[in-house]
Amino acid sequence: MIDLFFTPDKVAVIGASRDPHKLGYGVIRNLIKYNFKGSIYPVNRHANEILDIPCYPSIEELPDGIDLAVVVVPATYVPNVVEQCGKKGIKNAIVVSGGFSETGDEGKKLEEKLQETAEKQGIRIIGPNCIGTIDTHTPVNTTFVVGMPEQGGIGFISQSGAMVAAVIDWARGAGVGFSRIVSLGNQIDVTETEMIDLIGNDRQTEVITAYAEGISDGKEFLNTAKKISGKKPFVILKGGQSKKGAEAVSSHTGALSGSKEAYSAAFRKAGVLEARTMEEMFDWARALAWQPLPKGKRVAVLTNAGGPAILAVDAIEKAGLELAELTQETRDYLKSRLPKAASAKNPVDVLAGSGPATYTLALEALLTDDTVDAVVVIQAPQDWFLPASLAEVVGETAGLHTKPVIASIMGKASVDEALNILHKRRVPNVAFPERAASILSAMVQRKEWLNSNGESLSASEKIIPADADLFVENQDFESLIEAYEINLPPQEIVKNKTDTLKIAESIGYPVVLKLISKEQSHKSDIGGVKTGIQNSTDLKRVWNEFHQVADSNNIKPEGILIQKMLENGLEVIIGIKQDDQFGPLVLFGTGGTDVELYKDVETAIAPLSAEEAQELIDSTIAGRKLKGWRNLPAADITAVKKALIQMSKIAANHPEISEMEINPLYVLRDGDGAFAIDVRGSLGK
Amino acid sequence: MIDLFFTPDKVAVIGASRDPHKLGYGVIRNLIKYNFKGSIYPVNRHANEILDIPCYPSIEELPDGIDLAVVVVPATYVPNVVEQCGKKGIKNAIVVSGGFSETGDEGKKLEEKLQETAEKQGIRIIGPNCIGTIDTHTPVNTTFVVGMPEQGGIGFISQSGAMVAAVIDWARGAGVGFSRIVSLGNQIDVTETEMIDLIGNDRQTEVITAYAEGISDGKEFLNTAKKISGKKPFVILKGGQSKKGAEAVSSHTGALSGSKEAYSAAFRKAGVLEARTMEEMFDWARALAWQPLPKGKRVAVLTNAGGPAILAVDAIEKAGLELAELTQETRDYLKSRLPKAASAKNPVDVLAGSGPATYTLALEALLTDDTVDAVVVIQAPQDWFLPASLAEVVGETAGLHTKPVIASIMGKASVDEALNILHKRRVPNVAFPERAASILSAMVQRKEWLNSNGESLSASEKIIPADADLFVENQDFESLIEAYEINLPPQEIVKNKTDTLKIAESIGYPVVLKLISKEQSHKSDIGGVKTGIQNSTDLKRVWNEFHQVADSNNIKPEGILIQKMLENGLEVIIGIKQDDQFGPLVLFGTGGTDVELYKDVETAIAPLSAEEAQELIDSTIAGRKLKGWRNLPAADITAVKKALIQMSKIAANHPEISEMEINPLYVLRDGDGAFAIDVRGSLGK
Repeated sequence: MIDLFFTPDKVAVIGASRDPHKLGYGVIRNLIKYNFKGSIYPVNRHANEILDIPCYPSIEELPDGIDLAVVVVPATYVPNVVEQCGKKGIKNAIVVSGGFSETGDEGKKLEEKLQETAEKQGIRIIGPNCIGTIDTHTPVNTTFVVGMPEQGGIGFISQSGAMVAAVIDWARGAGVGFSRIVSLGNQIDVTETEMIDLIGNDRQTEVITAYAEGISDGKEFLNTAKKISGKKPFVILKGGQSKKGAEAVSSHTGALSGSKEAYSAAFRKAGVLEARTMEEMFDWARALAWQPLPKGKRVAVLTNAGGPAILAVDAIEKAGLELAELTQETRDYLKSRLPKAASAKNPVDVLAGSGPATYTLALEALLTDDTVDAVVVIQAPQDWFLPASLAEVVGETAGLHTKPVIASIMGKASVDEALNILHKRRVPNVAFPERAASILSAMVQRKEWLNSNGESLSASEKIIPADADLFVENQDFESLIEAYEINLPPQEIVKNKTDTLKIAESIGYPVVLKLISKEQSHKSDIGGVKTGIQNSTDLKRVWNEFHQVADSNNIKPEGILIQKMLENGLEVIIGIKQDDQFGPLVLFGTGGTDVELYKDVETAIAPLSAEEAQELIDSTIAGRKLKGWRNLPAADITAVKKALIQMSKIAANHPEISEMEINPLYVLRDGDGAFAIDVRGSLGK
Repeated sequence: MIDLFFTPDKVAVIGASRDPHKLGYGVIRNLIKYNFKGSIYPVNRHANEILDIPCYPSIEELPDGIDLAVVVVPATYVPNVVEQCGKKGIKNAIVVSGGFSETGDEGKKLEEKLQETAEKQGIRIIGPNCIGTIDTHTPVNTTFVVGMPEQGGIGFISQSGAMVAAVIDWARGAGVGFSRIVSLGNQIDVTETEMIDLIGNDRQTEVITAYAEGISDGKEFLNTAKKISGKKPFVILKGGQSKKGAEAVSSHTGALSGSKEAYSAAFRKAGVLEARTMEEMFDWARALAWQPLPKGKRVAVLTNAGGPAILAVDAIEKAGLELAELTQETRDYLKSRLPKAASAKNPVDVLAGSGPATYTLALEALLTDDTVDAVVVIQAPQDWFLPASLAEVVGETAGLHTKPVIASIMGKASVDEALNILHKRRVPNVAFPERAASILSAMVQRKEWLNSNGESLSASEKIIPADADLFVENQDFESLIEAYEINLPPQEIVKNKTDTLKIAESIGYPVVLKLISKEQSHKSDIGGVKTGIQNSTDLKRVWNEFHQVADSNNIKPEGILIQKMLENGLEVIIGIKQDDQFGPLVLFGTGGTDVELYKDVETAIAPLSAEEAQELIDSTIAGRKLKGWRNLPAADITAVKKALIQMSKIAANHPEISEMEINPLYVLRDGDGAFAIDVRGSLGK
């Protein structure tokens, strides 16, 4: 149904104008100029025709069967216009008009009225305050923006109309062709997620790109984006990653998983590639549309000059890719075909004297080498052969193989023709070779996600232990994690010295004492934690000290926790949090008191599969440490993984827990387990 | 003298050719085509004239007073040609010919012969294997590359000829104009540092840029670069930051200060701005050439659309800049002049309906606001006023103030004229606003360096304590640092249990015992360090354990170190190292056993001034921790600073120490000092 926003037969323009300076003129002009094959129905009370198309004085008088109305009347008239459209049986409207919630409270009221009207009339709305839709294949262009992008396979969804206009203008000639473009405006009805679904399923669209400032519904987005990413590459640029979310901080977990981290975790989970700039988004999209994905991360560089190749190699290493080794066979072959002083190792330098024929032989050899997953072809400017001839042979050779090739025919003034040929051959070109590394790393990322995707926790695994709800209600987080089979060290809360000594004997020295008090959440900072107590003499001394500490800090201790002291382990943190957008998050990283300083933590969307838990562990320094660092033996990663999965289940099963963290989870040697030394949390908001 | 490479009157071209496919033709063509005003003397045994210029059959027959010879004969003839040039009294030669050390051992020998000849003849050489020099102001173009860059204020020094060719081609039309360009080739004589000095002192050059793969002499480079940076901005792109340096690792310090870190430290010290890509280098250079430096880091964004402004704000925050607050006065003024729904807060959004007049008023208000240090002006594409008119008012308004303005008139196809106007007005433009943030952060970095530069340690401060050399010789690094007034904790090495108990009583419990052995440099990993020994019973037990540890690890202990145990301090690392290029380095960061994992370390060139020591501390997380993190009191930063300065003096005074580190330096509360718990080092290579 909402596909008619891109494939209408009959389009009415409400507020069409004869004045070339008005938007209502621009929309009619674009429909005509960009070859809309259907019928156009301008509505204007005062004109007979606009650009030779007969006008209708009112919506009522329009013929039946209009697929789409484009509304460009002043804001205050819009609700009435939409009502009339509904009555006329029109089911889709693009409201271009601005003057709604973006202008303040009054506009907000008007927008609410518009929303109510639309719902009542059962009419789907894009906008208000948007610039409409483009489909280069239908073709239809309902915007008033001058210029139509080239036909191509990239879909672009934008929450900023200005970005659409900028991209249309910038993409012309850059070899970036589009299938569908939509500007969503204030999104009172049709959301970015619906559009992702729609454009993701469009036959002409090979890659989806989006500029998003927010997501209307995190969970829906996650589901849809993941489904679409399984079929097509999806690249997003997230604007406005404000700090405000991180300002109201109540714990490590709060500080460490701000809105930015939650979005990034969601994008990773859904297989959405997150670009850092507009240019990067379209660099990636173009390559993903045009070239096959690499099987792995081993890149060969083919060049006619040293300097640019060095920059490419630097960028390849920095992007986490590898230089392909090349087989002995390839190296021997290259040695026999290239000039004597050329480099037959990667980067392969054919030297300045070589032309398109030498490039062809070398590129063919690299593309048939099993140690090579992708090739970057660099040509530094020269003036003794036509760059366009190199473009031809690179394009042709690349087309005969199933590995990605990125070109960097360098320069600008002299290589226009070569670039046109490369674009025709669907080989992306970058003016400086460093950008090729970013492109290939995005392609590798997608390949890896596609390889690992599919395995995920099903809802049926939602097993909530008995008593869990009770523990949550009482904020007894220690019992809660025990119910979820996460281990606590042997410990007990004691009220008097005699009990303390007795318990210490039973769990065995050395022990740790902790002052328990509601007032002080960071106990260790005031001397309220004492480790390494070896015997009863020490224990008595510490007991006395604690009462002094409590007095001098004006704290009423509720008791003292006595805990078996664990030794020679590693401290990690596991936190969970409810995100406004994406629901349960889980984070993992280096634990201890400095966790907020070093920020070695990564975030993921809960619940975690075993594989996702392993990936989360692997993405941190803490994870590398657990595997055995220097002479240290490997720690019990299996226990950590289990604790992570169980914590992620707690996050998913108990949305009423707004934040909770185990810090540290104390991890012993492989086989000896992991223990939650300190557990904190809070309910609600 | 070597200025004649750019300002010759009489240029001889040895190996000039009539064949348009030969380099010897290209050089003559470029000299003529790009308006060289002096005389050209082609040398060719077989031709009478080339491009209407009479030829000379041999060097011998050239007239006297030739300033510069461009040599384009086959490599084997080059030494002989240079000898003849010398005999003819020519003092400068550019050797374009390739086929020297870049091709292998034979070429290397030929290059050595060339070098000897040049030295004997007292002739200065650029190259071999280079593409020559360009001066757009003389003008002279001794290269064979098609195309001449626009006249401008950017000097470019390149160790890759291909990068020069690429930059010439790419810069045409990009608004990047050059003063002097030089390709240095194999650098057998004239080095990058000489060129930095020469071009840095060229009147027409406003900014120096360099693509460098290596530095010929680190200390000379440091001195020259610093001197030049004091006068003009200097931007560098370092290619080929290989990992090889870091592979041969013998200690934390070795692993943490690879070649890349040493170069970066040198660039920082010399005030050289290090770009990450070619595009960034010229983005920065253009802005530094055209616009004044900002006083501080507070940026205002002026826009006609939300989306692009949000991306700009994201990039500004990410680059470590700040959004200017704006005074109430400015906000009131903007409110009175802008459309009702516009944002009078930063980012200032004049909305899509506003034109160049509104932009003018808003830009003027922002540039006169004392809370604003720089302005980014964004125009999203629109088609109701001429972008060129906005370019005019932005250019004119910016020219009336002394704050930097960066424009982002977005798009490509429709804004050519606007960009030409901005370039004429010396306002840099970027197609997407994110790039403005990188530009401004480079400008802020330069401003801050200029503010802090000038204060440095003089050689007269080289005071070496008595006995220091003796301690170095004996590798007694603990005594050495004591001689330099860095504190050790109370400690002693003991051989038997009785002594151990006696010493423990005298320095007081708790104590630490450490097993001393040459075989095992990382003692703590095998249980050879025991902390928190509270009394003689514990001490005896640990003593016995140590002998077991030694036996089971096949270690012959040389004794046991007994040390006063310090508590409640912070662990930092101070390391020194001799770098092949830049001499003594010093590094600082978070200490302890995980230092290589977390890599919270920064490197600087030794010796350090007090200010440099403070900057080094401030640039790390360890530094933030020392200032007092959470409830922790501030630590003794003064003691750390002193230790850093003293260690940096050791590095400078004792180049025979290849590496040395204090890890941890244990830092107590403010006033209580810092103590070197463990000191290691090694001599020579």
